[in-house]
Amino acid sequence: MQKTGTFDGMPGSELRHDPVQRRWVIVASERGRRPVEFSRASSVREGGVGRCPFCVGNEGLTPKEIARYGSGPGGDWKVRVVPNKFPALRVEGELRRSAAGQYDRMSGVGAHEVIIETPDHGREMADLPVEHLALVLRAYRDRIVDLRNDTRLKYILVFKNSGLDAGASLPHAHSQVMATPVTPRTVVMELVAAREHYRLKERCIFCDIMEAEHEAGSRVVLMDAHFTTHCPYASRFPFEMVVYPRRHMADYVRCDDELLMHLARHLKEVLRRMNKALNNPGFNMVLHTAPSVNGAPLRSSYWDTLEADWHWHFEILPRISNVAGFEWGTGFYINPTPPEDAAAFMRQVDL
Amino acid sequence: MQKTGTFDGMPGSELRHDPVQRRWVIVASERGRRPVEFSRASSVREGGVGRCPFCVGNEGLTPKEIARYGSGPGGDWKVRVVPNKFPALRVEGELRRSAAGQYDRMSGVGAHEVIIETPDHGREMADLPVEHLALVLRAYRDRIVDLRNDTRLKYILVFKNSGLDAGASLPHAHSQVMATPVTPRTVVMELVAAREHYRLKERCIFCDIMEAEHEAGSRVVLMDAHFTTHCPYASRFPFEMVVYPRRHMADYVRCDDELLMHLARHLKEVLRRMNKALNNPGFNMVLHTAPSVNGAPLRSSYWDTLEADWHWHFEILPRISNVAGFEWGTGFYINPTPPEDAAAFMRQVDL
Repeated sequence: MQKTGTFDGMPGSELRHDPVQRRWVIVASERGRRPVEFSRASSVREGGVGRCPFCVGNEGLTPKEIARYGSGPGGDWKVRVVPNKFPALRVEGELRRSAAGQYDRMSGVGAHEVIIETPDHGREMADLPVEHLALVLRAYRDRIVDLRNDTRLKYILVFKNSGLDAGASLPHAHSQVMATPVTPRTVVMELVAAREHYRLKERCIFCDIMEAEHEAGSRVVLMDAHFTTHCPYASRFPFEMVVYPRRHMADYVRCDDELLMHLARHLKEVLRRMNKALNNPGFNMVLHTAPSVNGAPLRSSYWDTLEADWHWHFEILPRISNVAGFEWGTGFYINPTPPEDAAAFMRQVDL
Repeated sequence: MQKTGTFDGMPGSELRHDPVQRRWVIVASERGRRPVEFSRASSVREGGVGRCPFCVGNEGLTPKEIARYGSGPGGDWKVRVVPNKFPALRVEGELRRSAAGQYDRMSGVGAHEVIIETPDHGREMADLPVEHLALVLRAYRDRIVDLRNDTRLKYILVFKNSGLDAGASLPHAHSQVMATPVTPRTVVMELVAAREHYRLKERCIFCDIMEAEHEAGSRVVLMDAHFTTHCPYASRFPFEMVVYPRRHMADYVRCDDELLMHLARHLKEVLRRMNKALNNPGFNMVLHTAPSVNGAPLRSSYWDTLEADWHWHFEILPRISNVAGFEWGTGFYINPTPPEDAAAFMRQVDL
């Protein structure tokens, strides 16, 4: 079979641009299995406890550690950051752009890291003590700060797939960090909408949404002094949630350790309510922070400054309904559960 | 629990607009199950053979038939069109738009129909004789023509979810037609890209892609005198395919019965190759035809004419990999299988 997915002979992935949807896709040949292995497969790549590379004692099974948090005198740790063993993008190599006939491509330069949230195989994010979860949230922040030093990279995505249904390849609790040489399309759309709203009203669109949600109340899941979580008015999925900092704040990296402790407390309760309401569903969580290049305060080739019109937030998407062809082919969603019902249900849960 | 998802007391669904993603979502309260039923559920709504409302002999279990094809003297049929028993949108009622605080909404007016592809419970689309499959494709065309008479509707989506993995709620082979009062965002993006390409080059972007693909050859799955199928250069998913008519043609409804017979022959072979290569995967298929209102030749409130710059096509998306949080949160995809490998694999399959 023809070997492709390489860029000028360099092994690895490449980015390809779809001229109709104007979307970049990572085509990562090295992650590929043989096509025949795809039939009905969604298998876990490596074994269970004992052989799990994220478990304490198996540190040697991961690539060289980037950072660790909460280490004690005995060499133990609470959170570890390591490169992804099967990276979709690689730090090595030059960022090269070229035409491929009428198409456009880019070498697969970037970063792909794993944040191991706990040494304990059986614990989920919601089970972690608040102080421990705060370390995970600090790792998110610190990786963004560090990766922004690489001027080739346009955006740093922090996300979590929890459960095999949600795309996790290993059950041991972990998050991922992916730094990409393009700004993802969904983020660009949000940036454009936020920018236009600000130009028109000189107000942050997210602050406006938060105020409307607090006034209505019906979609609020949890609110405290520092953070608020609600089910969006036009939720795509049942029980979809967004977590906003209540104070206007464009960039996640501005969170100090104290604020991250508040965030950990808030997030833990949100996840526990979701788990109780939906019987521990698989879920995805994605951080949308401001794009920033080279550590500069919120500056990029696209956007002069986002201090005023961006507002970082998490999206939480429980995986309880199958997205069907209608949604894939159209970007148009059918949500069978009104977000008001979902929020009320999660508010009423006994923890 | 608070009852919502109604519009001014009218039972049914509503469309809600997301101000950040600028996306309309159908929030369909009547389709809703109780939240607790969502935990891990993706259950089939009605029983197996015998009680299947799409089986021959059970015609009384569906809402009143809209059309049938291939009926013989004994009252038998090959293809039936019926309203969806659990519609996401309804034909009844006025199309009302209103503000909801700072949000926007619209009443859930539209149409949602089912095309039962065969009376035989055990047959899949790929198993149908070419003449029979051509009747299904005629039903697609005829429903679009008919629904365009409703001036409230902006776009008519024809799609198919095959297999429970792919979101089908019943295993019996069927397609769906959904007419929406807004043009879906993905379609709008394609329209914009096609329009801009045409303005710049005075050529159809899809015709250009087709020519490039035929020249390269490596991503072509099947080509005959009338149709061509290839794996897109920037495929989001392994084994993703698009089917184009080789002659420039903006609107699917312009297909005559003879051309649909050629399409049926082509599509059957494509699906058989996919089934053989991937061991009968679940899949989604979506028709992207030109938007058109009120039967007028390719005219809508957004676009003056699309004769020159649109080109109808099918997207086929096998459901063999789990889409993870990274993709949901970003619109950015990682495809582990180069489309060149996928196409070669499907070309080489022994049928």
